[in-house]
Amino acid sequence: MQKITAVTHDKVTIKDSFWSARLEVNRSVTLKAEYDQLKKTGRFDAFKLAWKPGQPLKPHYFWDSDVAKWIEAVSYSLAQHPDSKLSALLDELIDDIEKAQLPDGYLNVYFTIVEPEKRWKNLRDHHELYCMGHLIEAAVAHQQATGSSKFLNVMRRCADKIDSVFGPESGKKRGYCGHPEIELALMKLYQASGEKRYLKLAKFFIDERGQEPFYFDLEAKERGEVPPGPLSQLQSDKPLREMDAASGHAVRAAYLYAGMADVAAETGDKELRNACLRLWENITLRQMYISGGIGSNPHGEKFGGDYDLPNDTAYAETCAGIALAFWAHRMLSLDSPKACYMDVFERALYNTILGGVSLDGTRYYYGNPLASVPERERKAHLSQERQEWFCCACCPPNLARLLASLGGYLCSQTKDCAWLHLYMGSEISLRLAGTQLLIEQRTDYPWDGKVSINVSPEKAANFSLAFRIPGWCRSFKAKLNGKGIGVKKLLRDGYLYISRKWEPGDCIELDFAMPIERMEAHPALSYDCGRIALQRGPLLYCLEEMDNGKHLNDLIIDHSVELKASFEKKLLGGAVSISGTAWRRDERRWKDALYLPLGTKIKQVKFKAIPFFLRANRHVGEMLVWISHDVKPG
Amino acid sequence: MQKITAVTHDKVTIKDSFWSARLEVNRSVTLKAEYDQLKKTGRFDAFKLAWKPGQPLKPHYFWDSDVAKWIEAVSYSLAQHPDSKLSALLDELIDDIEKAQLPDGYLNVYFTIVEPEKRWKNLRDHHELYCMGHLIEAAVAHQQATGSSKFLNVMRRCADKIDSVFGPESGKKRGYCGHPEIELALMKLYQASGEKRYLKLAKFFIDERGQEPFYFDLEAKERGEVPPGPLSQLQSDKPLREMDAASGHAVRAAYLYAGMADVAAETGDKELRNACLRLWENITLRQMYISGGIGSNPHGEKFGGDYDLPNDTAYAETCAGIALAFWAHRMLSLDSPKACYMDVFERALYNTILGGVSLDGTRYYYGNPLASVPERERKAHLSQERQEWFCCACCPPNLARLLASLGGYLCSQTKDCAWLHLYMGSEISLRLAGTQLLIEQRTDYPWDGKVSINVSPEKAANFSLAFRIPGWCRSFKAKLNGKGIGVKKLLRDGYLYISRKWEPGDCIELDFAMPIERMEAHPALSYDCGRIALQRGPLLYCLEEMDNGKHLNDLIIDHSVELKASFEKKLLGGAVSISGTAWRRDERRWKDALYLPLGTKIKQVKFKAIPFFLRANRHVGEMLVWISHDVKPG
Repeated sequence: MQKITAVTHDKVTIKDSFWSARLEVNRSVTLKAEYDQLKKTGRFDAFKLAWKPGQPLKPHYFWDSDVAKWIEAVSYSLAQHPDSKLSALLDELIDDIEKAQLPDGYLNVYFTIVEPEKRWKNLRDHHELYCMGHLIEAAVAHQQATGSSKFLNVMRRCADKIDSVFGPESGKKRGYCGHPEIELALMKLYQASGEKRYLKLAKFFIDERGQEPFYFDLEAKERGEVPPGPLSQLQSDKPLREMDAASGHAVRAAYLYAGMADVAAETGDKELRNACLRLWENITLRQMYISGGIGSNPHGEKFGGDYDLPNDTAYAETCAGIALAFWAHRMLSLDSPKACYMDVFERALYNTILGGVSLDGTRYYYGNPLASVPERERKAHLSQERQEWFCCACCPPNLARLLASLGGYLCSQTKDCAWLHLYMGSEISLRLAGTQLLIEQRTDYPWDGKVSINVSPEKAANFSLAFRIPGWCRSFKAKLNGKGIGVKKLLRDGYLYISRKWEPGDCIELDFAMPIERMEAHPALSYDCGRIALQRGPLLYCLEEMDNGKHLNDLIIDHSVELKASFEKKLLGGAVSISGTAWRRDERRWKDALYLPLGTKIKQVKFKAIPFFLRANRHVGEMLVWISHDVKPG
Repeated sequence: MQKITAVTHDKVTIKDSFWSARLEVNRSVTLKAEYDQLKKTGRFDAFKLAWKPGQPLKPHYFWDSDVAKWIEAVSYSLAQHPDSKLSALLDELIDDIEKAQLPDGYLNVYFTIVEPEKRWKNLRDHHELYCMGHLIEAAVAHQQATGSSKFLNVMRRCADKIDSVFGPESGKKRGYCGHPEIELALMKLYQASGEKRYLKLAKFFIDERGQEPFYFDLEAKERGEVPPGPLSQLQSDKPLREMDAASGHAVRAAYLYAGMADVAAETGDKELRNACLRLWENITLRQMYISGGIGSNPHGEKFGGDYDLPNDTAYAETCAGIALAFWAHRMLSLDSPKACYMDVFERALYNTILGGVSLDGTRYYYGNPLASVPERERKAHLSQERQEWFCCACCPPNLARLLASLGGYLCSQTKDCAWLHLYMGSEISLRLAGTQLLIEQRTDYPWDGKVSINVSPEKAANFSLAFRIPGWCRSFKAKLNGKGIGVKKLLRDGYLYISRKWEPGDCIELDFAMPIERMEAHPALSYDCGRIALQRGPLLYCLEEMDNGKHLNDLIIDHSVELKASFEKKLLGGAVSISGTAWRRDERRWKDALYLPLGTKIKQVKFKAIPFFLRANRHVGEMLVWISHDVKPG
C-alpha cells in the first residue's frame, strides 16, 4: 500500500460557520491570554536563566513544555495569519532558548539553573526528555511556518545530544522518559529533517521501554531510593509490543502509542503495529467515555480498567483527549484509512477537546467529568467552574496548538487518492495524480448533515476521492453533480470511494441524516446502565441545572417521548438544543426523609439539553450527560 | 423527666434463633481469632515493654486501643460465659498493663518505649487520649464483669494523670485529642466511679474543642511545623455547640457526638443538646446510607457532605456504623425515647455492623460499599473480599465488643417504665416499680415480624411498658393476653405504651407486617435516582453475582412484578431470600461496541436477592444494593 500522508494545515483554509469564530478566538484571545499567563507565572522569562535561589517564580521542571506548546500553537497560527506582535515575541523567546542551550546541546531550564546536578538522574519523574520533545515539536512547527531554521537547528543539536546519551550502544544510557512524548517528537524531527538517526533513537526508546532489568528501578537504586510503585503507571512494566490493554497515566499512554504508531508505520514493524491495534481496540471498546475522554481515574490521572468509566469522578483530562486524537490520526497511516479512527478523533474533538476551553477562549477544563453536582465536588480538577490557568498547565497550550493546526486533520492522501475525514467549510489544496486540486467544502456541520464539496482539479484527471461516512451516521445520501449515486458498492471501511476522471467544477453533495439519537452503553459499563445519552451528529449533549433545575439525576426520559432539535440563535453563540418532556419525582414528599417506600408522585416536566462542549459557559451548576430513561421489554 | 438508663447486658440473656448462633461465633471463634492476631502482630505483648529499636513488631501508637477493645469484648463475654482460658489471658494482660503504667499514671506503650520524647506533643495525630479512652472503657467493663477493681484502678490513675495535664486551669494544656473517644470513656468512668472530676474533664474536652486559637495549630507551631490541613476533618474548626452539619472523619465524629450526648444528658446543657439534635438530623436525613453506614468519602474516611452518598466508592467504615449505634443509643437518654434513635441503631446493626464480619466470624470488612465490581476495585478498603485483619485494626475488636454487649441495647428504663427497643429471643431482668420483673421475648425476628413477650413481675404492680414500633413497619397489631388492643392512642414517638397493673403471666403479642418493600431515596441523592433498594423488616437486601450473573447494574425490576420472600434453610445458615423476575439487556449485540443507539433487546430473567449483611460469604463477585427499576408516572 502507498504511504498515506496528511495534507498539512498550511494547505487548508477553514472558512466555516461553526469553526471560523472558534479558531479566531483561539488565535486572537487564547494565544494572547496564554502568553500573559506564561509571562506572569515566570515560564516565559525562565529561559533567560536569570532565576536565583530564594527568588520567587522558581522554575519547575515541566515549565519548558508549556512554553513549547505555545510556540507550536503560535507557529501554526503565523503560517496563515501573520501577526507582527506574536512574531516579535516568538523571536525574543527563541533567542532566549538558543542562549539557554548548553554548549553540548542539553536544553532544560530547571536542570540548568535549579538542580543541574540532577541532570539525567531521574528519567522517571523529571520530564527532561518530555520537555525536549515538546520543544522539538515546536521547532518543527516553527520552521515549517516561518521558513527559519534557527530554532530547528537548536533542537537538532539537542536531539543529537539526546542521541549521544541514550541508545543500545555501550556507554550510553538504556533509559527512556517517564512521560513519553520524545518518541513522537523525534519522528516529527526525522520527517522534517530526513535524518535517520532520529528514527533510530525513537525506535530505541520504544523498544527499550519495559525491558528488564527495569531502567526506572536501576536509576532509583542509583539515587539510593527504593524502586518506585507500579511501573504500569508509566507504561514501562513490560515491552510495549507485548501490551494488550492500556493502563497507567492516560496522557503518557496516548502520546506513547502515537509514537509507537509512527515508528511502526515507518519501519513496517508488524509486532509493534499489532500492539497498536490491540491497544486501540482496548481503549475504544472498553476504556473510552462517550465524550472521547480517556483516563477515568483521578488518582494517577490514569486508565481505570475495562468498563471502569464513572461519570461524576471521571478524570478524562483534556490533554488525554488531545493525545487520543493525535494517536487516532496516526492510526490512519499505520493501518489503513478506516472511518473508526477519525470517528474517535471527531468524538474527542467535538466533545472533550472543544469543551476544554470556554466560548470566550480564556478558561479551561483540565478534567472533564460527565456529571457534576458542584457542591459535592471534592477536587479542583473536577470543578464545574472553568479555570484560567493551572499549576500544571499542560492543557491550555495543548488545546491552542490543536485548534491552530486543525486544518491539518481534514484530509490525507496518497499519490492518487485523497481521503476527506472531517466536514467543515474549507479549502484544501493538494497535488493529486499530477494535477493541482482544490477541494472546497460548504456545510453547516455539526448542526446539519449536508455537505457540498466542489472538486476543482486544474485539469481533468483520474483519481479517487474517499469521503468518511461518520460512525454516528446511520443513513446518508450522496450526489455527484446533482445526480444521486448508489453508494453500497463504493463503501469500504467507512469511506465512500469515488474513482473517476474528475473535471473542474465537479460537485459532490453528501447528506448525512442527523436525527437525535438516544445512545446506550455496553451492559458492563455499570454507571450507564438504565441511562441514555443524547447525541446528534458528532455532538454529545448534556443537561444543565439552569435549564432543568436541580437534581438532574432524577429526570427520566420516556422511550416514546419525541425529542426536538432546534437551532437557537441566542443560545451560546448559536447552537442546536434538544428538548422534550421528561418525568421527575415530586419532591414535596421528601422534607423529613432520606429513604421511603416507593410511591413518590411523578410529574411531567420539560427539559432542554445543550451540546456537552458548551457546558459551564453560562453558570456553575449541576450537569449531566447520562440521563435515566424508562426501560421497556423490547 | 426521669433519667433513662439502659438495662445492662449482664441482665439480659439472649436466646434467639437468629442471634444465639452469631453471638456464639463471636464468643468462641472471633474473640480467639482476634487474640491470635493481636498476639501474632505484637500488639498483645507490646505491653511488656520489651521492644527495642531495630527489632521487628515495632509498636504503633494506636495499638493500645486494639487490645483495649478486645479486653472490653472479653469482659462482656466473661460476665455471662465464664471461660478460664480467656480469664487467664486477661489476667496476664492486665498485669502487663499495670506494669506498663508509669509512676505518674501515664499509660501508652508507644510513647513509653518508642518515642517517649514526643509524649503529649502532637494531640492531633498521636491518639494518646484515644488509646487511654479505650483502655478506660475496657477497665470499666472488666470491673463490671469480674468485680475486680485492679484494672479500673490502673485506669483511674491514668485518668487522674490526664486530669492533671489537661484543663482550663493555668499551667494545664488546653488541648483535646485528634481522635475523640476519651470524652465518652470519661463519662463511663464517671458513671462507674461517681467521681465528678471525670465528668468535668469530659466536659472540658467538649467545651474546649474548636475554640480559638486552635490548639492543633498552636502545638504544630511548637513542633516547628506548618499548621495542619482543614480542622473540620477533626471536628475542631469551631466550637461543638455551634455545629450543625457533620463533617470530617466519621468514626471520630460519631464517638465525639456520643460523648457530647453523654455530657449534655448529665449536665442538662441545652446548647449542647441542641447541637446533638442538629447533628443527628443532619446525618440521618442527609448523610447516612440506607445500610446505616456513614462517612462516604474514602479520602480521610470522612463525611462527603449532604446527599453525597456514592455506592461503589462508599467508605461507610464498620467502626463508623458502630459509633453511630453508640450515639443513637445515647440519644434516647439525652432526648427522650423516640423510635427514630433505635431505628438507626437497628439499621446500622443488622446491615453495616453485622455485615462487617463473616458468617464464620473470622473475616471482616473495614469499608462497606453498597455496590461492588471486584475487578474494578481500586483500594483494599473497598475489596469485596473480606480480610482476616488490618494494619489499622480498629474494626474487628470493635465488632466483637458490640456483639458481646448486644444485650445491653435491648431495654431502657426509668423507675416505673421500661422501653423495649429491639426484638430478639431474650430474658431481661430488671427492677421496676418496686418489683423484680422478667421480660421474656420469643420471636423469629428479623425473618418474621411476630413477637411474643411474657411479662412476669414477681408481684403485680403498676408500671408502663413501651414497645418500639420499628420505623420500617407500616402496619402492626398488638394483643394483650390474647385480645387485640386498639393501638392508636397508645402510640407516642414511635413507642406503644401500655400502662397497667401487670400481673405474672401477662403476655403481649406484637405482629409487625413485614412485606418486601421497594425503597427509594431522596431525589437529591443522585446515585440512587431511578433505583430501588429491597428491604424486608430491618434487613436491607442485595444482589450477588453468583445468583444473578455479571453486570448487576443492568438488571431492572419492574414496578408491577411480584416479589417473593422465602426462608431458605440451606442459604447462608438459613435466611430469607427475595426473588422475582427482572429484565436485562441481551448482551449479544455488544461484541464490538461500547456505545450504540438505543435498541438492545430486553429479556426477562429471574433474580434472587440476599440480606446485605450476608454478602460475600460464598464468593467474591459483583454485589449491588440499589437496583434499577422502571419508572412510571404515578
